[in-house]
Amino acid sequence: MVSAEQMKFEVSDRVATITFDRPDKMNAWTPVMESELRRLMAIASEDDDVRAIVITGAGRGFCAGADMGRLSDASSGNTSAAPPVAPAESDDDLAQRYSYLLAVPKPIIAGINGAIAGVGLCIAIYCDLRFMAAGAKLTTSFARRGLIAEHGSAWMLRQLIGPMNAADLLLSGRVVEAAEAERLGLVRMLPADTFRETVQQTASDFANLCSPRSMRIIKQQLTAAPRQTLAEATQLANREVAICRGTEDFKEGVAHFIEKRAPRFTGK
Amino acid sequence: MVSAEQMKFEVSDRVATITFDRPDKMNAWTPVMESELRRLMAIASEDDDVRAIVITGAGRGFCAGADMGRLSDASSGNTSAAPPVAPAESDDDLAQRYSYLLAVPKPIIAGINGAIAGVGLCIAIYCDLRFMAAGAKLTTSFARRGLIAEHGSAWMLRQLIGPMNAADLLLSGRVVEAAEAERLGLVRMLPADTFRETVQQTASDFANLCSPRSMRIIKQQLTAAPRQTLAEATQLANREVAICRGTEDFKEGVAHFIEKRAPRFTGK
Amino acid sequence: MVSAEQMKFEVSDRVATITFDRPDKMNAWTPVMESELRRLMAIASEDDDVRAIVITGAGRGFCAGADMGRLSDASSGNTSAAPPVAPAESDDDLAQRYSYLLAVPKPIIAGINGAIAGVGLCIAIYCDLRFMAAGAKLTTSFARRGLIAEHGSAWMLRQLIGPMNAADLLLSGRVVEAAEAERLGLVRMLPADTFRETVQQTASDFANLCSPRSMRIIKQQLTAAPRQTLAEATQLANREVAICRGTEDFKEGVAHFIEKRAPRFTGK
Repeated sequence: MVSAEQMKFEVSDRVATITFDRPDKMNAWTPVMESELRRLMAIASEDDDVRAIVITGAGRGFCAGADMGRLSDASSGNTSAAPPVAPAESDDDLAQRYSYLLAVPKPIIAGINGAIAGVGLCIAIYCDLRFMAAGAKLTTSFARRGLIAEHGSAWMLRQLIGPMNAADLLLSGRVVEAAEAERLGLVRMLPADTFRETVQQTASDFANLCSPRSMRIIKQQLTAAPRQTLAEATQLANREVAICRGTEDFKEGVAHFIEKRAPRFTGK
Repeated sequence: MVSAEQMKFEVSDRVATITFDRPDKMNAWTPVMESELRRLMAIASEDDDVRAIVITGAGRGFCAGADMGRLSDASSGNTSAAPPVAPAESDDDLAQRYSYLLAVPKPIIAGINGAIAGVGLCIAIYCDLRFMAAGAKLTTSFARRGLIAEHGSAWMLRQLIGPMNAADLLLSGRVVEAAEAERLGLVRMLPADTFRETVQQTASDFANLCSPRSMRIIKQQLTAAPRQTLAEATQLANREVAICRGTEDFKEGVAHFIEKRAPRFTGK
Repeated sequence: MVSAEQMKFEVSDRVATITFDRPDKMNAWTPVMESELRRLMAIASEDDDVRAIVITGAGRGFCAGADMGRLSDASSGNTSAAPPVAPAESDDDLAQRYSYLLAVPKPIIAGINGAIAGVGLCIAIYCDLRFMAAGAKLTTSFARRGLIAEHGSAWMLRQLIGPMNAADLLLSGRVVEAAEAERLGLVRMLPADTFRETVQQTASDFANLCSPRSMRIIKQQLTAAPRQTLAEATQLANREVAICRGTEDFKEGVAHFIEKRAPRFTGK
């Protein structure tokens, strides 16, 4: 049984669900949550019984951004309220404060059950998929707090939704509802009343219908792409596909298709 | 009072509006307009009472492209009809003929009130946001004039709307209406009858609800992104957020939120 | 008369149509098809009477991926079933196994008449435009076969539809219908009953309304963009537009517009 102070961790049907658990504070972000998320992600990464991961929030919100009390202290010059020490400066794209999620070798789904803002959004943009409950609200908020695009969000949002939509969300700091966030290409909207079940079902499909080995390598391919030329990306694919040919998962991937049955991938 | 020959310049509620003003020619582009746009943008950039900028067209069109008489002369080999001397070749992404708009430290909204083509579109793609009146028509036009994708438009359109949509608009030179331009991700469509008011209101929200300091730096972050790795973008954000902590705008950004009142940002 | 074993080749109204022609196998991909596609593309590229190219499938499918018999042999360790020898490793983005389509100097439209999967999709993503018949189904399939994102598809899909949609299609291997593929930005959906006529008409518009010289250079500009800075892209455009001024196609491009008649481009 994995325990944490401000988060819950459950595994069901090969899906690990990490739930931000300060519902009375709309799961506003704290240094404790930051280190707990890292620790729980490491556990989920290493556990062979986990093949997909969901991040979501308890109660009505997903994560309303930095804890406002802490932000208020910081704006008054209270330095003890400073955020935890950043990771040592690294040139590794996947070793920044939240970008390490891109290096997790399993699909991560952000289940945005309710309000999401600031650093909460910064976490969600490093997930592979974002589902958002109809009616939930999203904002970058930075420009309205006198802040800037934190944690690589300018770079990531530009990649995810293009320069115009990124400029809109970041420069305006305006609040958009799930329906508009979907039109911008940032999330997929789901009905609110069956939200958690649908997210779980989608994660379960990843976990049970896809080769975990394939998902691990495909995630690496996607993450490597921004630093590659098309030629380099193709050469990487060529090398990886040659390796696939000797694997159990490839054998099973063909066999279950021909035998018209559910797959039993081992990840080997 | 700022005066110009082929443009109007007005400031209202912290929004500067630059209006292309050759309505009888659908605001077809001239060398005079090119230098006037540069001059008016410099004025709007430096004026502390201006926090957001709108570019739009007088009459029924936004900008129908290069002045056809001039183009016709050029195609007959009349070299005196050549466009004004290009800026000296520069390796600075933000020092090209129209890309300087990306370096303007305030949000720029293109208010595409009517027909937009050729060089008119090249100007609009360097704005941060593009609103387009329902029913208005857009075309790159180049491939139908025997020309090519001018002024970095192949590069910019690829970033803004992806390789397929960019190829469609540029290779075909076809005319699309606002509704399709919105589906392609290039613009936001607004009802025609309240178009100018809605654009002004949106610009006014930038000007009055957001820290001008934040907007300036966020625009730099977005513009720098294509030359950065994710690690570099994150490191830049980390440095900038540390600087924010000592600013008036951060203090005000937190204070107005806690006090549930409109912000009074100073840009300091 | 161009002949091929597993493909058809027709030219009509300046449009070359290459039809995958193993309808009883849903046009599943073979080494013969790979080399025939290369040969037919070379013919279409060099033929001055061809100004646009369509790739489509005979019967109910577009291309259902690698031939399953061959894949099954490969998964059993039968090395004689290996795919044809890859092109020698090259650092040229346009000299990879299917990326050569990007170097074809004419617009290529994928007319996705029916089911498309695996390598079939890899071919389609290197076309300039993708039309898909309503109701047709698309899947990357790799993760469900124990394979990875082949032939640069992780890189290309990320560019075409952004990181989230690329991750969804590649990590899940799920089947999407044309309507969803359109929402993801991957294709344009067309009614099924007039599909082939509409694709032909669109290709015919490219062929007859646009300068072939312009299309050739614009395609080069789009393809070069990922390796360029904005400054480099703009400088290339500036050089090319200067060359245009001396061409027949520019003269005709202006003349037919002023004379309000159909263009007669020569490509010179």
